[in-house]
Amino acid sequence: MADPFRVGLLGHGTVGSAFDELLGRQADAIAAATGRRPELCGVLTRSRGSFQEILDGADAVVELIGGLEPAREYALAALAAGKPVVTANKQLLSQHGDELFAAARQVGTQLRYEAAVAGVVPVIRVMRESFAGAHIEKVHGIVNGTTNYILSEMARTGASYADALARAQELGYAEADPTDDVTGKDAAAKMAILARLAFHTPVHLDQVPYEGIEEITANDIDYAKEFGLVLKLLGVAERRADGISVRVFPCFLYRGHPLASVSGPFNAVTLESPAITEITLSGPGAGGQETASAVLGDLVSVMSSSGMELDPIEKLEIVPGEQVESAFYLHLEVEDQPGVLGEIAKVLGEKLVSVKSVVQKGLGEKARLVMVMHPVAEGRFDGAVAAISELPIMRSAPRAIRVIEEEFVS
Amino acid sequence: MADPFRVGLLGHGTVGSAFDELLGRQADAIAAATGRRPELCGVLTRSRGSFQEILDGADAVVELIGGLEPAREYALAALAAGKPVVTANKQLLSQHGDELFAAARQVGTQLRYEAAVAGVVPVIRVMRESFAGAHIEKVHGIVNGTTNYILSEMARTGASYADALARAQELGYAEADPTDDVTGKDAAAKMAILARLAFHTPVHLDQVPYEGIEEITANDIDYAKEFGLVLKLLGVAERRADGISVRVFPCFLYRGHPLASVSGPFNAVTLESPAITEITLSGPGAGGQETASAVLGDLVSVMSSSGMELDPIEKLEIVPGEQVESAFYLHLEVEDQPGVLGEIAKVLGEKLVSVKSVVQKGLGEKARLVMVMHPVAEGRFDGAVAAISELPIMRSAPRAIRVIEEEFVS
Repeated sequence: MADPFRVGLLGHGTVGSAFDELLGRQADAIAAATGRRPELCGVLTRSRGSFQEILDGADAVVELIGGLEPAREYALAALAAGKPVVTANKQLLSQHGDELFAAARQVGTQLRYEAAVAGVVPVIRVMRESFAGAHIEKVHGIVNGTTNYILSEMARTGASYADALARAQELGYAEADPTDDVTGKDAAAKMAILARLAFHTPVHLDQVPYEGIEEITANDIDYAKEFGLVLKLLGVAERRADGISVRVFPCFLYRGHPLASVSGPFNAVTLESPAITEITLSGPGAGGQETASAVLGDLVSVMSSSGMELDPIEKLEIVPGEQVESAFYLHLEVEDQPGVLGEIAKVLGEKLVSVKSVVQKGLGEKARLVMVMHPVAEGRFDGAVAAISELPIMRSAPRAIRVIEEEFVS
Repeated sequence: MADPFRVGLLGHGTVGSAFDELLGRQADAIAAATGRRPELCGVLTRSRGSFQEILDGADAVVELIGGLEPAREYALAALAAGKPVVTANKQLLSQHGDELFAAARQVGTQLRYEAAVAGVVPVIRVMRESFAGAHIEKVHGIVNGTTNYILSEMARTGASYADALARAQELGYAEADPTDDVTGKDAAAKMAILARLAFHTPVHLDQVPYEGIEEITANDIDYAKEFGLVLKLLGVAERRADGISVRVFPCFLYRGHPLASVSGPFNAVTLESPAITEITLSGPGAGGQETASAVLGDLVSVMSSSGMELDPIEKLEIVPGEQVESAFYLHLEVEDQPGVLGEIAKVLGEKLVSVKSVVQKGLGEKARLVMVMHPVAEGRFDGAVAAISELPIMRSAPRAIRVIEEEFVS
């Protein structure tokens, strides 16, 4: 048997300790598969270990500290020393990806990060390898399990956002401070990472506009049911004639859409390419065990592959959100009096926003209008909503949510 | 730039020519990603080319001839010469896998076969790499697009099996001779390949019992709707206390099951593992383009990886089908007279088969009983059905179809 493959582990929290345990359990199987037995040569925590010593003795470094510093410093030092790095750190990659990938490229070593996106769903691997011979047009999906659990609960039980969040926290699907998840920031970081890989273009977290689910009400979900719609928080990255667009937003899907049936704390990502049509990958979002398993998969790849990281080569333009076309659902509470629908239709017509379907309901003194629009440039739609909100017949602020219209191709 | 990576292509039919074209189109991108530019060093067809010359000049061989011979002979010769082989040939791998993997192992080279299973859905890669550190409990799914299209059409339009097959042939989803697909043999070959990889155990096509969809009627699908069930042709490979079980059969799923919504000529495979819970991968089944794309993905892996093929190491027992427990749907046409249900229940009770739900309908002189059973060893259930079919009250042969009871975990 060849020498062991020495792994320097940075961080020993939930994921780090799960990785430590999994590595011990699977070491023999990995030795059988790769010819070398992986073993830890050192563990760095806040209270023990020396990074430099661990680095010197390691064949590869696994970074599970999280956060920006000192994770960034350590990863750069390891890459500079020619040691492959495996990380689960989405904030690091979405904010310092350029620097890290450049460092890996410079010395011809690997930077692997499957665990940073979509839990155990191996979307990075599939994009890197299976799609190596294909042109990716679009990557979209549910990349945050916390918000998908909350939205699934709201739809299933009619619970309010606050109650569903509390339940997610009880079950361990949401952190005590859920801000990064519910604002969409976590999903935006993952979409930045996916977009970089899909389009060979540097994408920084700051370039990904995101909207969260904090403002979603049980009413939104109920009304949308009248149209056969399901609400999901989606990340969408796509090629366009004028560049690429990368965004995160809550969105209604028709029930036939493959992502509509992804429930609970699951993630799912669909990759679209002309040669391949589409592949959807789904599975549980990140728990400690699942993340550790994805990290270990990357480590095995590092052990058996000579591949190196390459810089993005296309560097496409990132198109501003207001130029992207989307279909919208629009919910309006108005005075229940004759001519109201006409007045609204007039504003929409002036702004060239075209209505696909509408449901009007009288509710005593006021009426509720729920409309679904044909796709329209978002800037134009926002203008129409602003004009509508100033009409004297409005009884509350308009509520607009995007709608994905495609049905499942079959 | 380093020397080109020379590829010997065996076969130039639908997939071969699609691969040839795709390789030309993506060669630059692959060169950028791997450091070497792939190019064909020779093409073998029935009318031109010398295998030996192509082999001598190749860094790797792509086998797209199909069938057993001479594909087997060429693949063995290439492996013996230390050249990695990429193939899309499921019959070859499911019938001569032992010999081929042993040959690859002997010289420490690679045998890759993503395109042999599930079209572009990268299930082999995910099992080999992402699950390298995980114990796979079960692999199951829809691995034949032709039959999935036919069953989807029957459910959607109420068409007969014959009409849906004719339509599939018109659209190019079924061959002129559809035997391998509709009998389940094609799916069985794929399941043999998946089971070998999942359980590190040699599995030959002959060890995979399969049932097809030729006997399925529009009535079966209609009646099952009363129970909220959808019919799919499933491949199931699972670990059991006493070994492994690998089978293919038509089967009812509850609508909430993730495979129930996979429609048309699509494939989908779910991998289950304690560490990972489950991952589902779905996408279009094999067309020429899609298969070529999977072959190219394998070629890129060969170019950038030093991994070699290892022999199966566990060699688990393969459990005979009659010992495996399944839930069943049972459809009976009987005389419409008092005591009929009691008589049938008595036989089931004697055979220790337990009924979960039953719907009885009078139809003039006869009645229809549709029952769903609790899981039971298949041998025992078959005995009960044989005894029932001999009852004088029976008006036609009993129809039994398996049911998967699990709902989607969420």
